[in-house]
Amino acid sequence: MDAEIIAVGSEMLTAERLDTNSLYLTGELNSLGVEVVTKCVIGDDRDRLADAVGRALGRSGIVILSGGLGPTEDDLTREAVAQALGRGLVFHAEIAEALERRFAAMKRKMQEINKRQAFVIEGAEVLPNDRGTAPGQWVAANGAVAMLLPGPPHELKAMFEQQCLPRLAGLVPKQAIRTAFLRITGMTESDLDALISPVYKKYGNPATTILAANGDLQVHLRARCDTEAEADALLAEVARPIEELLGERLYSRTGDPLEVVVGGLLRARHATVAVAESCTGGMLGARITSTPGSSDYFSGGFITYSNLLKSQLLGVSTETLERYGAVSSQTAEAMAAGARERTGATYAISITGVAGPDGGSEEKPVGLVYIGIAGPEGTVAVNRRFLGDRQRIRVFTVQMALDLLRRRLQGLG
Amino acid sequence: MDAEIIAVGSEMLTAERLDTNSLYLTGELNSLGVEVVTKCVIGDDRDRLADAVGRALGRSGIVILSGGLGPTEDDLTREAVAQALGRGLVFHAEIAEALERRFAAMKRKMQEINKRQAFVIEGAEVLPNDRGTAPGQWVAANGAVAMLLPGPPHELKAMFEQQCLPRLAGLVPKQAIRTAFLRITGMTESDLDALISPVYKKYGNPATTILAANGDLQVHLRARCDTEAEADALLAEVARPIEELLGERLYSRTGDPLEVVVGGLLRARHATVAVAESCTGGMLGARITSTPGSSDYFSGGFITYSNLLKSQLLGVSTETLERYGAVSSQTAEAMAAGARERTGATYAISITGVAGPDGGSEEKPVGLVYIGIAGPEGTVAVNRRFLGDRQRIRVFTVQMALDLLRRRLQGLG
Repeated sequence: MDAEIIAVGSEMLTAERLDTNSLYLTGELNSLGVEVVTKCVIGDDRDRLADAVGRALGRSGIVILSGGLGPTEDDLTREAVAQALGRGLVFHAEIAEALERRFAAMKRKMQEINKRQAFVIEGAEVLPNDRGTAPGQWVAANGAVAMLLPGPPHELKAMFEQQCLPRLAGLVPKQAIRTAFLRITGMTESDLDALISPVYKKYGNPATTILAANGDLQVHLRARCDTEAEADALLAEVARPIEELLGERLYSRTGDPLEVVVGGLLRARHATVAVAESCTGGMLGARITSTPGSSDYFSGGFITYSNLLKSQLLGVSTETLERYGAVSSQTAEAMAAGARERTGATYAISITGVAGPDGGSEEKPVGLVYIGIAGPEGTVAVNRRFLGDRQRIRVFTVQMALDLLRRRLQGLG
Repeated sequence: MDAEIIAVGSEMLTAERLDTNSLYLTGELNSLGVEVVTKCVIGDDRDRLADAVGRALGRSGIVILSGGLGPTEDDLTREAVAQALGRGLVFHAEIAEALERRFAAMKRKMQEINKRQAFVIEGAEVLPNDRGTAPGQWVAANGAVAMLLPGPPHELKAMFEQQCLPRLAGLVPKQAIRTAFLRITGMTESDLDALISPVYKKYGNPATTILAANGDLQVHLRARCDTEAEADALLAEVARPIEELLGERLYSRTGDPLEVVVGGLLRARHATVAVAESCTGGMLGARITSTPGSSDYFSGGFITYSNLLKSQLLGVSTETLERYGAVSSQTAEAMAAGARERTGATYAISITGVAGPDGGSEEKPVGLVYIGIAGPEGTVAVNRRFLGDRQRIRVFTVQMALDLLRRRLQGLG
């Protein structure tokens, strides 16, 4: 069974935006054994969209539409799919009432226009949206199925996972597919590939994918077999030698991101962590607290962007700042030690660096960062130079800081 | 005149890759006044591709294909376009000879298969490729034109610029395009549309697009006229009544994001800001410092995730915490006042709330946040309830906090 993906919205036909939902959808469809054979972006034009939907449904078993389910007049996906199928739209009072309750909970009055979101294609199933106002729809027609999903990625993903995957399981011939997720940090994508490709290249099944983003690397091994037991055995056979090659750079065998792994290690040790951030301005704290329940192990910290606050709030001596500069191992160590002492946390991590694009020098170029870590075992600082723009330097720095804490907690560094 | 873009290649239908050539092409086409109305990615399937090309040429004046011009058997763009037009392919000996010379220069022998690149659609003009082996083609048919361009971005860009732009200038009527960017916060997308659609609906030109993400709204008005002066006058005519309706919710007329606008206001007033964050864990500081040069106005602040640190670092009294709770206007005000006092900043913003998914109660549900602001004019706190998951609640809270500061700086709130 083949699939087509249609992203709806004129804003995705500009020079600035791409449809990235299709990457997520493609990954999920591929794991069901479904190939994506075409993807399109169509603007807010009902006839053009209806034409594309009609043709897609005529040749592929699965058609997924994302976007165009909002309340405004340029949100035309409902109308276009109805037109393609020659069906009407039916007003569902219970959807309108749920929307009204949602607005009331926010103490806001619902606009009349939001009622457009309560229209459902004849014969379609409504897919509830627990993250936004736009319900999705699932329409079967002539042996094919069309799914209408909201455009915002977090809404689309939740709906696809909760509503579409179970329904698709009934449509697509059953295969046992098991995936192993290995997560690694502290190396480049090409070094990772050079290291492990001698193992995975020996196998067509499982299929191996390497993903890299923001200093974080993932290896996905996807095995397809007749039974789950066979798939698990095959995965174990391939994953074991890869894990051995990765060694301590492997931080997760479950797919959990680094901040969740670090949180688990802290919780298991009844330990807490505090932060002292300069050039990252709060990003490390924000990332640690992105995990629900992080109050178990995160106490808080300091954003000391100016030298004055590094002294006042963390007790970094003016002598250290003057002699070694704000971007130095001495300052990083003093920041970490000060944050640990002033919060009473078991560990404190500090970050100070040159995020750019200005402020670099011959001696301390843009991208140079120092990360300090203070704990019961003592205080150390390490440095690294990251390349790229301000955002990249900051994101990579936060990733490395978390990994240093992970290694410290695992007794590795 | 409208354009469609078709990217050819099964590798762009995987979960890892996007067609980014279309962004470059869209930007270039838009500056000629040409709209991109559809873009597609089609795999290496001749019939499917021929069908897509035929339909695109039937409805749009310009069809640009990228990729599928290589020497191997799965490079099918030449054949598919010929099939769509009902034309043959002609062998051009001079292309084959040029390829042979190119290989000879690299001291390599040309494979027989490379001769596939010497086939040209009947009636097409050959577009030389000075950066690779695949020549492009320019085919006029029935009042429309198809361009066959190589997939590698540096080859495509060079060919488009050198070969296609001069040819397009003769096809496309000269137009001036000017865009106005309005940015708004503090309302929903549907409220915004209800407010301003009575104005923009009166005009087909400029075209109006509303974008919403993370509590931030943008209105793009794009005017096309014969001259830039006319386009500017038209934009002013439409933007003025929209700006009046938006009033103080309009925070930018330049497209600058909120943290840049707030930074500019602080810098102009020689003022500084500090933060005191609980449930956002550093996100507000991270966002303020995402702007280069933010050290001019951002001094730093506190991440006080635990009650203990709210007392220790910010001086929030245990009485306040016990009597009103950590999520209260009293605590938010005390946090802001404490942060301002302890950093010496002109302003301080505090955030305390229930980001969820756990920790909510009847009285203080998940999504309830208090934002405090302390400044020379005094200290106040406001509250709001946001719906959605932990990430959404945190992002919307940061947006609202920045907007409160913007309003305070503009003397609005």
